[in-house]
Amino acid sequence: MINFNFHSPTYFEFGRETELKAGSLIERFGGKKVLVHYGGGSVVRSGLLDNVLKSLDERNISYVQLGGAVPNPRSGLVYQGIDLCRKENVDFILAVGGGSAIDSAKAIAIGVPYEGDFWDFYEGKKIEKALPVATILTLTAAGSEASSSSVITHENGMVKRGTGSNLIRPVFSILNPELTTSVSAYQTACGSTDMFAHVLERYFTNTKNVEITDRICEGIMLTIINETPKALANPNNYDARANLMWAGMIAHNDICGVGREQDWATHQLEHELSALYDVAHGAGLAVMFPAWMKYNMKQDVMRFAQFAVRVFGCEMDFQQPENTAKEGISKFEQFLKSIGMPIGFRELGAKKEDIPTLIEMLKLDSNGVGSFVNLSKDDVEKIYTLAAEND
Amino acid sequence: MINFNFHSPTYFEFGRETELKAGSLIERFGGKKVLVHYGGGSVVRSGLLDNVLKSLDERNISYVQLGGAVPNPRSGLVYQGIDLCRKENVDFILAVGGGSAIDSAKAIAIGVPYEGDFWDFYEGKKIEKALPVATILTLTAAGSEASSSSVITHENGMVKRGTGSNLIRPVFSILNPELTTSVSAYQTACGSTDMFAHVLERYFTNTKNVEITDRICEGIMLTIINETPKALANPNNYDARANLMWAGMIAHNDICGVGREQDWATHQLEHELSALYDVAHGAGLAVMFPAWMKYNMKQDVMRFAQFAVRVFGCEMDFQQPENTAKEGISKFEQFLKSIGMPIGFRELGAKKEDIPTLIEMLKLDSNGVGSFVNLSKDDVEKIYTLAAEND
Repeated sequence: MINFNFHSPTYFEFGRETELKAGSLIERFGGKKVLVHYGGGSVVRSGLLDNVLKSLDERNISYVQLGGAVPNPRSGLVYQGIDLCRKENVDFILAVGGGSAIDSAKAIAIGVPYEGDFWDFYEGKKIEKALPVATILTLTAAGSEASSSSVITHENGMVKRGTGSNLIRPVFSILNPELTTSVSAYQTACGSTDMFAHVLERYFTNTKNVEITDRICEGIMLTIINETPKALANPNNYDARANLMWAGMIAHNDICGVGREQDWATHQLEHELSALYDVAHGAGLAVMFPAWMKYNMKQDVMRFAQFAVRVFGCEMDFQQPENTAKEGISKFEQFLKSIGMPIGFRELGAKKEDIPTLIEMLKLDSNGVGSFVNLSKDDVEKIYTLAAEND
Repeated sequence: MINFNFHSPTYFEFGRETELKAGSLIERFGGKKVLVHYGGGSVVRSGLLDNVLKSLDERNISYVQLGGAVPNPRSGLVYQGIDLCRKENVDFILAVGGGSAIDSAKAIAIGVPYEGDFWDFYEGKKIEKALPVATILTLTAAGSEASSSSVITHENGMVKRGTGSNLIRPVFSILNPELTTSVSAYQTACGSTDMFAHVLERYFTNTKNVEITDRICEGIMLTIINETPKALANPNNYDARANLMWAGMIAHNDICGVGREQDWATHQLEHELSALYDVAHGAGLAVMFPAWMKYNMKQDVMRFAQFAVRVFGCEMDFQQPENTAKEGISKFEQFLKSIGMPIGFRELGAKKEDIPTLIEMLKLDSNGVGSFVNLSKDDVEKIYTLAAEND
């Protein structure tokens, strides 16, 4: 096990009707003037926004609103939010929505106290200061409700980049599974794939003997496999939604990643897909992960066999472990298909002839990408090609 | 799943030589005058205390020392610590040791700013204020390094009672597995049993469909089963010690208990054993848990079967699930024996004829004890008797 530090200080209020506690929680965490930031119309139409604002009114907390966050959230809205916060002396940001609203809220939070361009932080500058951010989650997927990260697409060139700091971990997050029952089957499946991928990026490691973290990873994956079909079969299944919602948090607050090297190549490869085609991040991951697995299986056949046996219940082939390893990847693909995910470029709407563009966008330097296997440009091309040819 | 809140704000610094960061961490968390509280001689003899004090000196942090914390920590030392802190204007408490030093540090932390007797909090008074507590852990067991709880034995009548509040969760905890390699085989096994029991108290619940929390529980138990024998076979096995150390934290910061009713009857039954005989808490739990399981199995045979299959790899008997359930309990007893734990009164040094005294000490009112099965005095007597007769 390698040395690590772990800090997940977010306060979670989980369960039915918990959005009504927004006002009292903001009061407790010291917010005086709040930016309420949300995405599209569903937050408004469902009455959620009204309930939240009412809860703020009841505590005499003043606020301004900014809607319009979109999937693969954009820089334009971030600049707008920063201006608004400065003009209105906002000292606290409440994101109401999914990963997009939260990630763009985090970008605003670091932009407000910074004199330069907030994008600097997405190009590697260290975050030194941020307004406190809190969330009311409406979509189980990104794990941004507890994570230290934020991903934004800059409209100048459609470059998608991430940043991270414990300073942008939400101070509190309200997780009410009821708010996710209106999420479509496709978006539910994308969310499950996204959180599965958050675990896989940490699961495939060269660090040996981190049994506790392995077991946590496997527990989350087993939960996703068990609960996603239930949520798809009956969108109002509260317990299925609740299990997925909490699994999504654990999948990305790093409790399943401590003590080991992590990979994250697949996320980077996918970012270029969703930047170029504006596809759902989860769908892009469903396409990229099986390809990444097939290409890298030889790096550690026994680890892939462990994945197959413990997560997908495969029988171990003690004579030829690579058969078990392959079966695990195949079962993972079957799972993705069964929940309605694409596993190849065609279904995703991506094109094989764009691979050179994707590689160009990735801006790969001599350091390559990924840790389990450090991928060169040539490796990346082969993985994109596997994904392109998968059907 | 039932509504819950979850807050585990402790910052963890985990790994080799991390105790050298004590000074910089105290500085970061605002401590100016520190009480360094520890237990017996090993912290001194090993040179750990010197290293810690040196790290404080390097940051010009002043401190006073208080040693002498003992297993099943006593009220007398707490009163002494409170007086010392007030006299020296201490504003931060650093516990160096195992659960005993940490629990007594927490008691001091709530006693200092309170005008009355600190024991009030152990008799049910709500904690409103506490000095910040931090820990350097030297024994994997109690989980007090991240938990909101503290258990103290009052010397007046040897009453053992617990209290809890998020205010006494440590602000930071330093976990260096190297510091645990000198822990004896018996204490190591007691520690593993203690953390196993922390999971079981949460695992046996009547709340249905909390798959994610079940899986986390099972992952921790599998890790304990896998790693404890390695640590016993070779006390210097760093990875085994590291897996156990982190599992001990996760077993008790409540991440494996959210969304469900928890039981905790066995802990209460055990507290009277260790109060009366001053035996190790883990050893007492090894005696009480199998008895509790046998007595309560009929409450939910399928849950015990799940425990047997998922945690101990038993084959499911689909015709007679109670056979599987029983086999799980039996395998658990075998595991406890294999790591050197007692599973009956005799080996523990307890006496069957003391059962009326134990029940008297428990001060059971009409509310009974426990949630999975709410136990009456009569039930408790039968469970103590099962434990007394187990060999």
